[in-house]
Amino acid sequence: MSRNSFGTLFRLTSFGESHGESIGGVVDGCPAGLELNIEEIQKALDRRRPGHSPLTSPRVETDKIHILSGLFEGKTTGAPIAFLIDNQQGDSTKYEAMKDLYRPGHASYSYMEKYGIFDHRGGGRSSARETAIRVAAGDIARQILIGVKVHAYLKSAGDATTPTEIEALVEEMKKEGNSVGGVVEVIVDNVPVGLGDPVYEKLEAKLAYAMLSIPASKGFEIGEGFSAAKMKGDEHNDPFDTVDGKVFTKTNHAGGILGGISNGMPIQFRVAFKPTSSVFKPIQTVNRQKEKKIFTLPEGSKHDPCVAIRAVVVVEAMTYLVLADCLLLNRCSKIDFSIR
Amino acid sequence: MSRNSFGTLFRLTSFGESHGESIGGVVDGCPAGLELNIEEIQKALDRRRPGHSPLTSPRVETDKIHILSGLFEGKTTGAPIAFLIDNQQGDSTKYEAMKDLYRPGHASYSYMEKYGIFDHRGGGRSSARETAIRVAAGDIARQILIGVKVHAYLKSAGDATTPTEIEALVEEMKKEGNSVGGVVEVIVDNVPVGLGDPVYEKLEAKLAYAMLSIPASKGFEIGEGFSAAKMKGDEHNDPFDTVDGKVFTKTNHAGGILGGISNGMPIQFRVAFKPTSSVFKPIQTVNRQKEKKIFTLPEGSKHDPCVAIRAVVVVEAMTYLVLADCLLLNRCSKIDFSIR
Amino acid sequence: MSRNSFGTLFRLTSFGESHGESIGGVVDGCPAGLELNIEEIQKALDRRRPGHSPLTSPRVETDKIHILSGLFEGKTTGAPIAFLIDNQQGDSTKYEAMKDLYRPGHASYSYMEKYGIFDHRGGGRSSARETAIRVAAGDIARQILIGVKVHAYLKSAGDATTPTEIEALVEEMKKEGNSVGGVVEVIVDNVPVGLGDPVYEKLEAKLAYAMLSIPASKGFEIGEGFSAAKMKGDEHNDPFDTVDGKVFTKTNHAGGILGGISNGMPIQFRVAFKPTSSVFKPIQTVNRQKEKKIFTLPEGSKHDPCVAIRAVVVVEAMTYLVLADCLLLNRCSKIDFSIR
Amino acid sequence: MSRNSFGTLFRLTSFGESHGESIGGVVDGCPAGLELNIEEIQKALDRRRPGHSPLTSPRVETDKIHILSGLFEGKTTGAPIAFLIDNQQGDSTKYEAMKDLYRPGHASYSYMEKYGIFDHRGGGRSSARETAIRVAAGDIARQILIGVKVHAYLKSAGDATTPTEIEALVEEMKKEGNSVGGVVEVIVDNVPVGLGDPVYEKLEAKLAYAMLSIPASKGFEIGEGFSAAKMKGDEHNDPFDTVDGKVFTKTNHAGGILGGISNGMPIQFRVAFKPTSSVFKPIQTVNRQKEKKIFTLPEGSKHDPCVAIRAVVVVEAMTYLVLADCLLLNRCSKIDFSIR
Repeated sequence: MSRNSFGTLFRLTSFGESHGESIGGVVDGCPAGLELNIEEIQKALDRRRPGHSPLTSPRVETDKIHILSGLFEGKTTGAPIAFLIDNQQGDSTKYEAMKDLYRPGHASYSYMEKYGIFDHRGGGRSSARETAIRVAAGDIARQILIGVKVHAYLKSAGDATTPTEIEALVEEMKKEGNSVGGVVEVIVDNVPVGLGDPVYEKLEAKLAYAMLSIPASKGFEIGEGFSAAKMKGDEHNDPFDTVDGKVFTKTNHAGGILGGISNGMPIQFRVAFKPTSSVFKPIQTVNRQKEKKIFTLPEGSKHDPCVAIRAVVVVEAMTYLVLADCLLLNRCSKIDFSIR
Repeated sequence: MSRNSFGTLFRLTSFGESHGESIGGVVDGCPAGLELNIEEIQKALDRRRPGHSPLTSPRVETDKIHILSGLFEGKTTGAPIAFLIDNQQGDSTKYEAMKDLYRPGHASYSYMEKYGIFDHRGGGRSSARETAIRVAAGDIARQILIGVKVHAYLKSAGDATTPTEIEALVEEMKKEGNSVGGVVEVIVDNVPVGLGDPVYEKLEAKLAYAMLSIPASKGFEIGEGFSAAKMKGDEHNDPFDTVDGKVFTKTNHAGGILGGISNGMPIQFRVAFKPTSSVFKPIQTVNRQKEKKIFTLPEGSKHDPCVAIRAVVVVEAMTYLVLADCLLLNRCSKIDFSIR
Repeated sequence: MSRNSFGTLFRLTSFGESHGESIGGVVDGCPAGLELNIEEIQKALDRRRPGHSPLTSPRVETDKIHILSGLFEGKTTGAPIAFLIDNQQGDSTKYEAMKDLYRPGHASYSYMEKYGIFDHRGGGRSSARETAIRVAAGDIARQILIGVKVHAYLKSAGDATTPTEIEALVEEMKKEGNSVGGVVEVIVDNVPVGLGDPVYEKLEAKLAYAMLSIPASKGFEIGEGFSAAKMKGDEHNDPFDTVDGKVFTKTNHAGGILGGISNGMPIQFRVAFKPTSSVFKPIQTVNRQKEKKIFTLPEGSKHDPCVAIRAVVVVEAMTYLVLADCLLLNRCSKIDFSIR
Repeated sequence: MSRNSFGTLFRLTSFGESHGESIGGVVDGCPAGLELNIEEIQKALDRRRPGHSPLTSPRVETDKIHILSGLFEGKTTGAPIAFLIDNQQGDSTKYEAMKDLYRPGHASYSYMEKYGIFDHRGGGRSSARETAIRVAAGDIARQILIGVKVHAYLKSAGDATTPTEIEALVEEMKKEGNSVGGVVEVIVDNVPVGLGDPVYEKLEAKLAYAMLSIPASKGFEIGEGFSAAKMKGDEHNDPFDTVDGKVFTKTNHAGGILGGISNGMPIQFRVAFKPTSSVFKPIQTVNRQKEKKIFTLPEGSKHDPCVAIRAVVVVEAMTYLVLADCLLLNRCSKIDFSIR
């Protein structure tokens, strides 16, 4: 389970399991001299927390960030910024009964095959709890991206596409002990031109990578996305225009990126999330002894009727992480002798 | 334009522009002792070549692979495998007229802003010609993935979803001087269990990254993908089953990956491609002097009515590159003392 | 101050300042299934601690390791192993007086120019306190290197080359408030053949990198080292020999590495350490306002008369980190189909 | 034999064997807009070439650089700069006789154990021929380091320390069919303050890594180096001074680096090279069948009486590569909003 880092120059390394004493992260590469607003990081964490929305899992996580390093007199020093978030000790005995069962839709089987060992208590490292680290780090990234504004929202859940509809559907899932998937849409304003690289490290490739690394995500599309596959060239092409010496495109089918590089238009993309796998419906499974069994989620287990709701803030965080890294990488694109 | 490498342990670095004398690649990290079948690499290149299908651009590229290093008596030595593919010298004078124009749907504007310099002849580095390198390297990757079979095909173009419909539509686009998008579907059989990592380097994240790095791609979805966002948990969960000590899932909504790690089921995903931007319809643009202009593709220019057709083999190649890298990374997942 | 990670597959990321509440590390890439002996990690930390030897700085650091993640029932899970070591809160007010002075032989001036900010309390990130993290991580590395034995010792201090001489010299330096340099020699037994890579990532290059990253180190030499520059080819060449089907060299001028790759002979190298810069002798300096000043170390300041003594265990740790990483990388050198 | 790249942002990947048709390199990450002087690259190659000095191996290598990509109208575009250098086809039949013998002092045995395959013709990938690539890439690095001047020279060979002595000694070795080691000293002037990082990626660590990756190098020391181990703190510390608002140190025992970061003083270091292993003296060895044999270099074989002579230009090149990479990395050390 190596490979727990994200980013090249602005780089997050995360650690910790959902049932350990705490989870944490190390942000390495944040430039020196940034007045870090810790309250804003905390606010981002508060937005992610279950219980924040009446529609999400009711478990209580206080999720207080505790910064260990990298600051001096309130400013970043260039040293790694390490932080911890304590776990609330849940009752892990309820997981004992399912200890030997592979949970459908969960990581347990593939982990067991890969590592020969699996911490069955609450998913261990595969728990979505790890996304709290992404949110905290994402807010640090946001703070170096002055002026850039990432806005994400739940565009749909199941077939519902308006807030009232979505609320009703999620409420219904909650009652049924079932869950539903959803789509998160993202719009990024004020993106500097020039972020991303032309070949493998295209900006859209990095965004897709970031989004598909979020638990439960199943798809990514930018600009017209899958609809572009149904369009014709003369419909899809965005004409360039100019006003007052500023260049822009009249439409934005491309979603703000051309040739892998941001073109200054809003970046627009969508991420699909599957319905949470933990539902109160019995389902066939297999145990470690390779016997068929029925898996039933214990009563009182945590239950998220629509994981896409909580994913919104995680999607924003991952977007900021990608953009901050690209911003730093872009400092080396030209031979600008003045910035040596 | 740094960052022209792909992969961690099995790593491709590519170089070259569409109008230079040749393009090339370096595959570093291929284990020693593989009897490399160069004819099969050539066959993969032949499949990608324009002119291979009657539906694609008629330009002639012979695309002969020329291997420079890394082999001894037909076997890989562990040293980097470098190869060149010569370019056919096209007539680049026709690009002179559009030298100062930003081409809608192309990289020219964002490149110019990022680098302050842009080779206008045929797209330079942003040309899809670079994908020939991916195809050659992908076939080397394929050769170390004994038994793994990646199969990609064009699932749809525009609204057409059967071969006959697609052929007719593309023919029409060709006549009209227009283009149409398409969706490529991929099925990978015989994937070993355990490829991919649990947090940031999830297998689906790496596949999404690989696919969105292909020119003209606009979306990626795995398993049910965007449809999963409309499903309920009890529909989407794949029950585990077992026969003769082998574990599998009865359905495969997940698309062969659980918790970021392959679970042994077929990996199934789709990639959306936009319609080619080069169409014979005049469109508004802006030049480097920031004046409004009309861009018209010169008569006789290369024209691909459906770029998704040629993308099929590139999608396969990128899939092999991802899987080969994951295969090598996975050699270190367990403390297996016998493989020191 | 990005770039706080060491290693490729077995990778340590460290964080924390000498005057923060704690320092810590994250070991990512340790294979799953290792029964980790935490007491042995603690013993390694105890060896590094000041006060361990009567000859080193008398400051009290308890240096208890606190592991946060990556273990389940005593075994590594493949997840990142994060750990903290608390700092004893020293009195940092004594640093106030020298706040604006650049300390000769220290990092303060170059940091200030690079980052525009410098935590003057005890050296911040540049403190040798960070080496405790290397020692803890190095012991984890040691535990996967079954059979490999790294032995380091202080070969000389100043002109003294025997333990008694060295002890007397260091005692004298302590009294004088002065310091002296030293050379640490390392012998590694039972190194597997095949570690290291032929071109840039030669094993000796990685060892040199590791050693020169230790605070106060000024030189590295392997095998005959600088003496090799005085030798002739026929003296330096090590003849191969064989007994019972085992190949070895009759001499070991090369120091256990040929062509960048371990050859199975003991690896032997030396590291030079400068005398500690903190001495009780006034010395000219400059302050942030660029005025000439005299720097005098405050009475009662920490003082290490010979930093090379404490470096011994750090040198061992860095050697283990390099070898563990090479061991994992080497799992991919051959196309061995059996270890897929 | 993966891991054939050097550098992080300014990154060289090399390929090719001494007996293949050509060797080559790819420089990825060179900023756009540099007017590349190819003649100067050629001059650097000419300096490295055997036959350049009357004291080195007489074999004829023309070593003409052939640039394949990354330039447009004489300027770098930000795209990878790939280049080839053709090999002169030597007569490799003379290697047939020693095909099965492990050459003392050479890579053959450790390669064979690592890869299970070894190209016996002239050393394959382990040949010093690969250093031509370093020299070409190093000159590209030099061209972005305006004002920085790396000067290396042969400080000693064997016991000889003056040019006349050295010349006589090398001439003697040539006649005897023997070889002698040497020390190369390097002085770098006009180094910007702030290059290098504080913990693992110290500038001296990167230089040590670079130098020990050069074939035949056995040691590295910076500033006083191994002599520092004999000094006392009050002798070794460099007092700061200031004239006209410029800060410097009155002495430079440190060698231009403090706390891992360049301090603006000249960087000064030395590299030890062993005597070439190829000498005309019979020596015991072992063959692949593990039988004892006598190895005798065939008459007429290439012979370098002092490899350190040709290493001078390689040492310079590697220094430039390290500094260029650090220069680019340093663009991200501060939160300087103006260089976004």
